[in-house]
Amino acid sequence: MKRARKVVLAYSGGVDTTACIPYLKHEWGCEEVVALTADLGQGAELGPIRDKALKAGASEAVVVDAREVFVTDYAFPALRANALYEDRYPLSSALGRPLIARMLVETARARNCDAVAHGCTGKGNDQVRFDLAVSVLDPELTVLAPAREWGMSRAETIAYSEAHGIPGHVRKSAPYAIDLNILGRNVEAGPLEDLRQEPPEEVYALTRTPEEAPDKPQYITIEFDEGIPTAIDGKQMPPVAMFEKLNVIAGAHGIGRLDILENRVVGIKTREVYEAPAQVVLILAHRELESLTLTAEVLRFKRGVESAYSSLVYDGLWYSPLKQALEAFVDQTQETVTGRVRLKLYKGTATVAGLESPFSLYRYDLATYGPECIFAQDSAAGFIDIFGLSTRVWSQMRNASGNRAAPRPIIEAVDKAERQALS
Amino acid sequence: MKRARKVVLAYSGGVDTTACIPYLKHEWGCEEVVALTADLGQGAELGPIRDKALKAGASEAVVVDAREVFVTDYAFPALRANALYEDRYPLSSALGRPLIARMLVETARARNCDAVAHGCTGKGNDQVRFDLAVSVLDPELTVLAPAREWGMSRAETIAYSEAHGIPGHVRKSAPYAIDLNILGRNVEAGPLEDLRQEPPEEVYALTRTPEEAPDKPQYITIEFDEGIPTAIDGKQMPPVAMFEKLNVIAGAHGIGRLDILENRVVGIKTREVYEAPAQVVLILAHRELESLTLTAEVLRFKRGVESAYSSLVYDGLWYSPLKQALEAFVDQTQETVTGRVRLKLYKGTATVAGLESPFSLYRYDLATYGPECIFAQDSAAGFIDIFGLSTRVWSQMRNASGNRAAPRPIIEAVDKAERQALS
Amino acid sequence: MKRARKVVLAYSGGVDTTACIPYLKHEWGCEEVVALTADLGQGAELGPIRDKALKAGASEAVVVDAREVFVTDYAFPALRANALYEDRYPLSSALGRPLIARMLVETARARNCDAVAHGCTGKGNDQVRFDLAVSVLDPELTVLAPAREWGMSRAETIAYSEAHGIPGHVRKSAPYAIDLNILGRNVEAGPLEDLRQEPPEEVYALTRTPEEAPDKPQYITIEFDEGIPTAIDGKQMPPVAMFEKLNVIAGAHGIGRLDILENRVVGIKTREVYEAPAQVVLILAHRELESLTLTAEVLRFKRGVESAYSSLVYDGLWYSPLKQALEAFVDQTQETVTGRVRLKLYKGTATVAGLESPFSLYRYDLATYGPECIFAQDSAAGFIDIFGLSTRVWSQMRNASGNRAAPRPIIEAVDKAERQALS
Amino acid sequence: MKRARKVVLAYSGGVDTTACIPYLKHEWGCEEVVALTADLGQGAELGPIRDKALKAGASEAVVVDAREVFVTDYAFPALRANALYEDRYPLSSALGRPLIARMLVETARARNCDAVAHGCTGKGNDQVRFDLAVSVLDPELTVLAPAREWGMSRAETIAYSEAHGIPGHVRKSAPYAIDLNILGRNVEAGPLEDLRQEPPEEVYALTRTPEEAPDKPQYITIEFDEGIPTAIDGKQMPPVAMFEKLNVIAGAHGIGRLDILENRVVGIKTREVYEAPAQVVLILAHRELESLTLTAEVLRFKRGVESAYSSLVYDGLWYSPLKQALEAFVDQTQETVTGRVRLKLYKGTATVAGLESPFSLYRYDLATYGPECIFAQDSAAGFIDIFGLSTRVWSQMRNASGNRAAPRPIIEAVDKAERQALS
Repeated sequence: MKRARKVVLAYSGGVDTTACIPYLKHEWGCEEVVALTADLGQGAELGPIRDKALKAGASEAVVVDAREVFVTDYAFPALRANALYEDRYPLSSALGRPLIARMLVETARARNCDAVAHGCTGKGNDQVRFDLAVSVLDPELTVLAPAREWGMSRAETIAYSEAHGIPGHVRKSAPYAIDLNILGRNVEAGPLEDLRQEPPEEVYALTRTPEEAPDKPQYITIEFDEGIPTAIDGKQMPPVAMFEKLNVIAGAHGIGRLDILENRVVGIKTREVYEAPAQVVLILAHRELESLTLTAEVLRFKRGVESAYSSLVYDGLWYSPLKQALEAFVDQTQETVTGRVRLKLYKGTATVAGLESPFSLYRYDLATYGPECIFAQDSAAGFIDIFGLSTRVWSQMRNASGNRAAPRPIIEAVDKAERQALS
Repeated sequence: MKRARKVVLAYSGGVDTTACIPYLKHEWGCEEVVALTADLGQGAELGPIRDKALKAGASEAVVVDAREVFVTDYAFPALRANALYEDRYPLSSALGRPLIARMLVETARARNCDAVAHGCTGKGNDQVRFDLAVSVLDPELTVLAPAREWGMSRAETIAYSEAHGIPGHVRKSAPYAIDLNILGRNVEAGPLEDLRQEPPEEVYALTRTPEEAPDKPQYITIEFDEGIPTAIDGKQMPPVAMFEKLNVIAGAHGIGRLDILENRVVGIKTREVYEAPAQVVLILAHRELESLTLTAEVLRFKRGVESAYSSLVYDGLWYSPLKQALEAFVDQTQETVTGRVRLKLYKGTATVAGLESPFSLYRYDLATYGPECIFAQDSAAGFIDIFGLSTRVWSQMRNASGNRAAPRPIIEAVDKAERQALS
Repeated sequence: MKRARKVVLAYSGGVDTTACIPYLKHEWGCEEVVALTADLGQGAELGPIRDKALKAGASEAVVVDAREVFVTDYAFPALRANALYEDRYPLSSALGRPLIARMLVETARARNCDAVAHGCTGKGNDQVRFDLAVSVLDPELTVLAPAREWGMSRAETIAYSEAHGIPGHVRKSAPYAIDLNILGRNVEAGPLEDLRQEPPEEVYALTRTPEEAPDKPQYITIEFDEGIPTAIDGKQMPPVAMFEKLNVIAGAHGIGRLDILENRVVGIKTREVYEAPAQVVLILAHRELESLTLTAEVLRFKRGVESAYSSLVYDGLWYSPLKQALEAFVDQTQETVTGRVRLKLYKGTATVAGLESPFSLYRYDLATYGPECIFAQDSAAGFIDIFGLSTRVWSQMRNASGNRAAPRPIIEAVDKAERQALS
Repeated sequence: MKRARKVVLAYSGGVDTTACIPYLKHEWGCEEVVALTADLGQGAELGPIRDKALKAGASEAVVVDAREVFVTDYAFPALRANALYEDRYPLSSALGRPLIARMLVETARARNCDAVAHGCTGKGNDQVRFDLAVSVLDPELTVLAPAREWGMSRAETIAYSEAHGIPGHVRKSAPYAIDLNILGRNVEAGPLEDLRQEPPEEVYALTRTPEEAPDKPQYITIEFDEGIPTAIDGKQMPPVAMFEKLNVIAGAHGIGRLDILENRVVGIKTREVYEAPAQVVLILAHRELESLTLTAEVLRFKRGVESAYSSLVYDGLWYSPLKQALEAFVDQTQETVTGRVRLKLYKGTATVAGLESPFSLYRYDLATYGPECIFAQDSAAGFIDIFGLSTRVWSQMRNASGNRAAPRPIIEAVDKAERQALS
């Protein structure tokens, strides 16, 4: 069994990670537990967290504001890749784990720990993300996951904590598992486990229900520079503020709710409810700008890259060589993704309402049906002749070889019943 | 130059196809022109179309109701493939062209024609679709495309028609090019050519603007049998009625509007506005049901198949061997796509509100966090150990070879500025 | 720990599976062990195998000749998919495992067993293939894998067997792990673990070393019917005979040796030496025939399907829904893969030497540079104009936006040093 | 019709390009024709080429040695991408065209030309490559292609040339079209147009026929640094020398012959014979080194990138944005592709005979079956449990829903005929 002398624990303040502190010390014999809490924008709860960790027996409790790194180094690259796991989930939680893992490794080195620990159970994705990220960043470090092994139910975990003098864990009624950071919020378990039912309104915290959103649409303009959002309505916004502001604006219009049946790394289907107002709006806007500034061929191949990228991130392989190579592809495509996207926000939906870019590939003089058109229509017949040549040859071969399956005749079939023909 | 004695013309009743009749006869020397109009659900306009064709000089005017074939043989296979060109456009027009081409070929044979003709210009996708479909279905038939060669402006075309005694074409104010069938409606040109502006409300005909949609959501339940929609709210619906009904219901809630910057076959970016209420709702519901009934691996590979399929259909390759093979893949996946999807329709958006299937792969006893859970958590550590092995070896090798690029330290960087550290 | 009353064991007669018999009975408490040996063409060793199993304590020993099913239901579908794992390994062993698993399940039902067992260790691919195939074919059956858990070295295993009265296992000097069936032979371990060295000649059994192959090439003609090989040199060959004959012919010319660094399911790189003369020759011939009878578009997409298919088979997912859907795609493509391929066999290499098919898509009148050519050269300029349009617009935009990175001039650079210029 | 005042012509010295000079001047009214010949390693023919051009009426004849740029900027990137069109053709000619186009554009600017010209016909790939490359590099330049439009047969072209005082073109007997550069040689037309026949020995020039190659194998060791070959048998080799030397060594062993049925850009199947000894050997060695130094995940995704890259290059899109992005992906993967590959060359085939790299991902301690093995076998059961979970759930669902198609029983079927069972 993997054991350690001094361990740094990813500490969220919740029931499980708090119970990990005495468990690591008393059951697994760790001498010291350092509690590390990354502030990724999860809000006001951070205040008392240090005290709680220390009271639970941590020898040290560190809280680090990592919001800017989070947005700049994790959220922005994902945005350039339009990263949506299974075309839906914008990876809010998944992007946080590799950053926390990096901080765990740094702290382990700075504090001379021989292990890191996390409080994830054996059913979720986050255990995979932590384990993999740490093992890549420092293959020598041991990773401990007490909650994966202890086999205690929630009630037993609370009892264990109380037995070790940890009070205040009595939120017995909360049926949901919740994770929150500046990119969004996700909720699972409880009533959500019945797929026949809509999520109860109580699961949402960042977004208004569309029915209660303003009756008047709101328009905003987002500016991008090489795929990175830089301004809203003409006002420059630093990274963290960009997300904070868009979460508020879009959330007020009920935008960014996602109710998804998702395939976990560990092979099961699970239902997840997400709120990610800023990400949903930014990815929409970014995609629209790409449709204006990238060629069809790049757009098409990039979709496959995006999908592979999203799966890797979801699966915990942020620090893998394939992810690096996919990112190099994406980066290369972004040099012209600069411009302005105007969006209409209304009752749960964001819609594009205007596009502009100095690198626009939309050419009015090619597209217009007006007299200014310069498109060479004579080229069309030659193009089609050659574009369809291989299929035509295939068809001729089938005819010649008598191998043709005649499709059932339409007009004759219809004739008898209802054909309206004439002499 | 390609010429013919007797030609069957795909006839829509519009300015261009009407002018084709005298043009084919007087300029290109065709002796007879048969006008063929396929009723794909474009509505009440069909009545006077035959008269118009005859008055313009057609020797015969045929109108065939092909709506059921259209839905059954074209729309349903596309639905099973969740066909969305560039992830957006549900291919309403694109699906009609190969069917019309098939009817042209049948009519050409029945009427002993040596050519077929269409009124498409040289800039659009439809010329490609007609030319390719006809050349595959009957490589011996000549395809004539007068409007691609005549080089007349719209005003000149109208003048030409009038000179040949064709009246009533004086709709000088309509700036849009419009196509309509039971799957949807698409609009291009005119004010839409300015990407900085939202589409004016006048371009829409099938859908209410979300702001004017009902303030109360509506719930409907769609039933699928092996990927084919069969009932709404428990009531069996034949194919055509299914589309008609959903167009009305979803259109009333403002659902199915699409404003897209699209890449044409002929290499240009164009802006298209679509309305496809039934298709948008059906594809959404079908995808949700697939997320419940297909494994993650099938879903993932099928996305690539869907994308290739959609491009082929858009590009006019409906009758190609690759499309056949992709369809075989899709068909095989649909055997378990049976069940019920409940949707909420509200202010322009459809959202899933409930899922049920006898072939559900969602297993409560695996997913739940409750005590009924049978997921083998012990397997997780072994899984992660092996799942991450190749990346871990890569990382160890990089360390050993001294090739490691150290990421910039987060905590130290943050430290100086704003770290809120420990006692 | 998983235990069982009566178990059917996949029995090869080797050290590990033989030791499994007493181990299952004495250590794990099984009452009865049925030994099942599938004859997949591994040759003359089958005779004494039954006796060995019974002597080792099996209550019953069944040997079934499954060669025809193996070739028809497993090898032929894989051939139609040109299945090569990582573009190299023709999956000879990997194709056998799902068939053996199916026979285990059948036998378990017929003999009223509550478990099946195999002798694979925890490092290889075969454990994955057995476990997955059985669990899909009958999710209720327990799968036992004693050798994965017992932790005995080879020497200890032999000692354990001898202690239970099993003699004759004293082949202490054989350093290789070998598997053999009618599709081929694979060898690993021992000296092969040093990548700097060529495989010693002793590892080969089915193929002559190229240096010792005949100095005169041999030509053979293979006939295919819808992707299935049916005749050699004009003589119809039933499935098993086809493989037996080609193994002899091609092996004599040194064809079918593969020395591969391969990525196992369990995440490690391993070196494997394969001999698969018939498969190598058949896949080559089949691919050539496809290049003649399939369109470029089908060939291109099929490559991706083949690669996914091969990975699935390698990974043990033969009975998975994705594999079924990929097979539906492949089957659809094969309807025209009929014809004759002439091959030259010489010193380790097979080369195509002639192609013929009634469904040939090669058209002399299109391809020739002679006067019979009917290719419409006028179409080319139009085709290129439109084919390159999107890239040209992109280039113009870059120029206009001043964003162009000028490539370093070639001629000037060269000029100074060595340009040989003009009068 | 496109016309020009002063034009720079890609000049090879052959029949067609020579005839272009008088044709451009006398038929199309160009005042001046500058002949540009790029030395890409096509050999000794370059001497008299300048004179020939001047005699044919060129106002200036420029010959530039571009071999080093060719290898460094075109061949090496393609090698890092293992670029093989349709998995076969190493793109020797295709890589030369964009470089010549770049030189044409440079010369056009330096010499104040308003057009560039090439002598390609309308059936081949090279017209596409020239047209596209020039139009991207300088969209303002006109591209003239006289041979695509003049409609003269070969005999007529020779007669036309002679009528304009160009002697010496009397090679009436040569039935092949040939292209040659330092990367290789390709031959088409003539007897090759009969697919039932092997290429006659006369088509080969760089490679010995395997039967006449040495009876003793030769071993060479190639060294790579980040995917670029740098040394042979321990001796550093500059880029051009590397190719020259490997062409000689490998060609002597009959390696690098390719007889391919290939799909052209313009939609036809054509048969091409290539000789590319150095490229074939280098790509083989490079791939082997990648199999040692890249993870399975990178290798797998890179195959798709390579295939897209190869098609783009073949199709003439070297200077396209998608090719740039794919190259960024490839470059990122190459940082560890450093090491030594030993090859055995014998009778037409190169085989790997040894691999070494400081970045090797092959881990003896993981792969070995010996006692040093550190692979955690206990992880396997957990891994398989979760790896197969989704398929297992699918199988259980099928059982529960009674939807299971029972496979035909093997053992019973076999039983009657030949089962060798026992009591």
